[in-house]
Amino acid sequence: MTDAISRFPVPRQEELPDDIRARILAVQEKSGFVPNVFLVLAHRPDEFRAFFAYHDALMEKPGGLSKAEREMIVVATSAGNHCLYCVVAHGAILRIRAKDATISERVAVNVREADLPPRQRAMLEFALKVAHESHAVCAADFEDLRAQGFSDEDAWDIGAIAAFFALSNRMAHLTGMRPNREFYAMGREAAPARG
Amino acid sequence: MTDAISRFPVPRQEELPDDIRARILAVQEKSGFVPNVFLVLAHRPDEFRAFFAYHDALMEKPGGLSKAEREMIVVATSAGNHCLYCVVAHGAILRIRAKDATISERVAVNVREADLPPRQRAMLEFALKVAHESHAVCAADFEDLRAQGFSDEDAWDIGAIAAFFALSNRMAHLTGMRPNREFYAMGREAAPARG
Amino acid sequence: MTDAISRFPVPRQEELPDDIRARILAVQEKSGFVPNVFLVLAHRPDEFRAFFAYHDALMEKPGGLSKAEREMIVVATSAGNHCLYCVVAHGAILRIRAKDATISERVAVNVREADLPPRQRAMLEFALKVAHESHAVCAADFEDLRAQGFSDEDAWDIGAIAAFFALSNRMAHLTGMRPNREFYAMGREAAPARG
Amino acid sequence: MTDAISRFPVPRQEELPDDIRARILAVQEKSGFVPNVFLVLAHRPDEFRAFFAYHDALMEKPGGLSKAEREMIVVATSAGNHCLYCVVAHGAILRIRAKDATISERVAVNVREADLPPRQRAMLEFALKVAHESHAVCAADFEDLRAQGFSDEDAWDIGAIAAFFALSNRMAHLTGMRPNREFYAMGREAAPARG
Amino acid sequence: MTDAISRFPVPRQEELPDDIRARILAVQEKSGFVPNVFLVLAHRPDEFRAFFAYHDALMEKPGGLSKAEREMIVVATSAGNHCLYCVVAHGAILRIRAKDATISERVAVNVREADLPPRQRAMLEFALKVAHESHAVCAADFEDLRAQGFSDEDAWDIGAIAAFFALSNRMAHLTGMRPNREFYAMGREAAPARG
Amino acid sequence: MTDAISRFPVPRQEELPDDIRARILAVQEKSGFVPNVFLVLAHRPDEFRAFFAYHDALMEKPGGLSKAEREMIVVATSAGNHCLYCVVAHGAILRIRAKDATISERVAVNVREADLPPRQRAMLEFALKVAHESHAVCAADFEDLRAQGFSDEDAWDIGAIAAFFALSNRMAHLTGMRPNREFYAMGREAAPARG
Repeated sequence: MTDAISRFPVPRQEELPDDIRARILAVQEKSGFVPNVFLVLAHRPDEFRAFFAYHDALMEKPGGLSKAEREMIVVATSAGNHCLYCVVAHGAILRIRAKDATISERVAVNVREADLPPRQRAMLEFALKVAHESHAVCAADFEDLRAQGFSDEDAWDIGAIAAFFALSNRMAHLTGMRPNREFYAMGREAAPARG
Repeated sequence: MTDAISRFPVPRQEELPDDIRARILAVQEKSGFVPNVFLVLAHRPDEFRAFFAYHDALMEKPGGLSKAEREMIVVATSAGNHCLYCVVAHGAILRIRAKDATISERVAVNVREADLPPRQRAMLEFALKVAHESHAVCAADFEDLRAQGFSDEDAWDIGAIAAFFALSNRMAHLTGMRPNREFYAMGREAAPARG
Repeated sequence: MTDAISRFPVPRQEELPDDIRARILAVQEKSGFVPNVFLVLAHRPDEFRAFFAYHDALMEKPGGLSKAEREMIVVATSAGNHCLYCVVAHGAILRIRAKDATISERVAVNVREADLPPRQRAMLEFALKVAHESHAVCAADFEDLRAQGFSDEDAWDIGAIAAFFALSNRMAHLTGMRPNREFYAMGREAAPARG
Repeated sequence: MTDAISRFPVPRQEELPDDIRARILAVQEKSGFVPNVFLVLAHRPDEFRAFFAYHDALMEKPGGLSKAEREMIVVATSAGNHCLYCVVAHGAILRIRAKDATISERVAVNVREADLPPRQRAMLEFALKVAHESHAVCAADFEDLRAQGFSDEDAWDIGAIAAFFALSNRMAHLTGMRPNREFYAMGREAAPARG
Repeated sequence: MTDAISRFPVPRQEELPDDIRARILAVQEKSGFVPNVFLVLAHRPDEFRAFFAYHDALMEKPGGLSKAEREMIVVATSAGNHCLYCVVAHGAILRIRAKDATISERVAVNVREADLPPRQRAMLEFALKVAHESHAVCAADFEDLRAQGFSDEDAWDIGAIAAFFALSNRMAHLTGMRPNREFYAMGREAAPARG
Repeated sequence: MTDAISRFPVPRQEELPDDIRARILAVQEKSGFVPNVFLVLAHRPDEFRAFFAYHDALMEKPGGLSKAEREMIVVATSAGNHCLYCVVAHGAILRIRAKDATISERVAVNVREADLPPRQRAMLEFALKVAHESHAVCAADFEDLRAQGFSDEDAWDIGAIAAFFALSNRMAHLTGMRPNREFYAMGREAAPARG
């Protein structure tokens, strides 16, 4: 048991390159705290910049997937990879974006028991296939997505988010990244009426 | 998406045998709600009685394991089995008994990242071995537990709790049991100071 | 190599609570010997009582499954779990109840090669799904069972037997339970005419 | 359910090449029946000849392994491959050669629970590694065998028997080969005194 | 790193039985070098003879599969078994027989990405099923092959080649067989025009 | 069979943003052809920029790993993921950087049979752990790397390359990316003297 958030050195604020410090301060401003992923990856500024550029290109872009749906992909695939940081941090964001206090555990523990609409179930099954057996992705998978109303550009988005968090989960495990305590408590109050 | 808590008929209160109704009312009195496992399993009164007798024999007995540790075993092995009901319901109980708002996700997602003391880490590794590859349990496993201060009676308790929830997880999946909404929100406020 | 039937202390007859001694004597009367599961689990009287109450609630109850079919479920799922005690003990009971000297090995080694009628094949496939990937049980599985003439109550029975022996197999592995020699020889003589 | 012993045509005795008919008659003379593997593989005479030449080169040769030990390798690896024919047929031969009515089930269900002497346990662990993850065989495995008194030539024998039955199990599954009823009953009477 | 081609003694030419020396000299005459499998297996002359008799019975016989298709089966299943010798040696033969410099890597890395015609894709899927989960082979697999124009005798050939190389791969791993350097360079020049 | 290099639209040169066209022309200048990954990912310019920025931050940076060693990590982990594009393209680069015509197949098929020096063997085992079971990465893994002379910064590099190609392999599978024919033939001539 330790308070360390990384196996690697975590730079102090004054050591950071200006652009990275600016991004971190902006996040702190907005969220009230600095998610540890920013501090842990700042140990490698070039990788930090590429990581968040990639993240934003997938998670902040317009497109057919809602922001909550993108977070569902992150939580489902990260749970499959047993990544504590991503399940906890993106579980919090998912609860807030979906306005649903129960959604993150439902998605993380068992997509089949999550009582999702068919569209989101199909989305997550494709994401999990990309995450865990991408070599078997085939034309029929795209057909299944189209049958649920997803365009091929949506399919790219689903698969690319799963692919990016395959990277992200592995970096969290490599660095021993630990989630901020704040994430555990976020979005717990708004459980909609369900069974 | 459905509000059903079971694939099978759920008896109304007036249909229940007296002893089962009494137990259910006692739980409701104590908890403020009736956990769905009581209602779902009441469809089969004889199995209900045996199930809770077994549960109490393991979870309420005295012994070397704290009540929080017993719940840790339930959460870790149920997460390995992707059982939404048990992860959510016993995750709530674990947070309350451990007085730790972050413990259930830490244990459910990845025991290796849970930052547990060596005793609890060894306890959960044995429990997971019983849950997922019990045919490989051997004398060396008992040695490892003794090295952490567990008696052989404690080893029985750890293994038997893992074994009982192997049954319980499967009954939850068989019946399509859904966790009560109340569990998701319980014990979220008391996060101790950690990274 | 050892003659021990358990890793844990096995109570002498005079140490047993009256109800447990009575049950053991009744079994001995009927079978001519005491199956080791009774002696091994008697180390924990409360768990013993719950275990056999649960066992009897599933294996002795009336219902759509024949007694031989219930034993087929035990043998198939216990073989999947590599549980020597249950395969040998229930293999013996299966041979006797099915009046078929070859059935236990056929079911234990490979259900697909067991040359079973479609009803029993479907029953065992569902039991194996509950035993090994219960988180994937879904509505379509119940449809498949209905197509073979099973009611939903039968489906509960199949799944609950698989679930109970998930517990039982793990207890056998935890305790190092060894089958009585008598089981190996029982029911070997009545092979019906098959290839 | 069918009485067919193969998915492929089984030649009548008068259709067989002389050498193959002679071998089959010799087996029948000795055993009192013709094991189905001879009839099923006779569909391809050249493969039949190579198969049994290979079999005899491994199973009938002199060397450090007893005949019973060779059959233990066959039963353990064939059970791992879920091959009904080989488990049943070689289980019968094993019981007879080992003069032990319980040995075949002990080895087939769980080598760890078979209560074997360390030499035979090590032998079977190496055989199972060759059968199921041969790409991981390494120098340390040979050291482990030497520590139990096996020469490197014995190691070849153990591994080659596992390799040959990797072929044999797959041919049995390809052809749908079914074991003769006689095998199930052989060697059941001589259980030595064990727990 | 070592130049050894086997963990076991490799006989010098003058130590070889006449028939084995003759076969080796004939191969050397034809190929310009002696593939290491001949030298490594010559340590056991009886097994050598059976091995190559079996090999020739499957790989040199007439039938519905082209010689290139047989090599495709070898490469695909050997890659699944992580067998360096067979992937490299038979990859070379496959490139030459198929007159395609890219075919061996396409088949070895991912059959689904190999851009094969449906007939060859079906052939390899059946071969991989025999290689990796032969206990699940069933009547529907033969139907699928017939739908692609394969006779049942072709199905035997496909399955038997997969079965034989299950043996061969394991012998290569047991002996630590290393591929000749010559194989790596063979057939690299003839890449047909593809993406 | 198709000549398509992607399931998604591939932009024509004149459609490309200036910076991306410039990068592609520079690669073509240097290599004599445009590797398909540049054309396939150009469908999404923002992701293209982040992808290659990340790639260069890991593969072009100074550090304790040679360029050939970085390519070994790519080939080993991509083979584990069955990614044809990355195995073929980076296999070519690896052969050239290592000046070894046999290294790519040795690393791709079975790291254990690749006859690598202990340092590179340890490097690849860590990379494969990050690729396939990163949740189990622990302090002992870093100790093992230090014992082979790797600094913790080297460990980050090894793990981060494995993590980046976890993303890359999944993008190749998502898009159906096919390797250029040129890669298959590159670096085949320089096999050093090995068994």
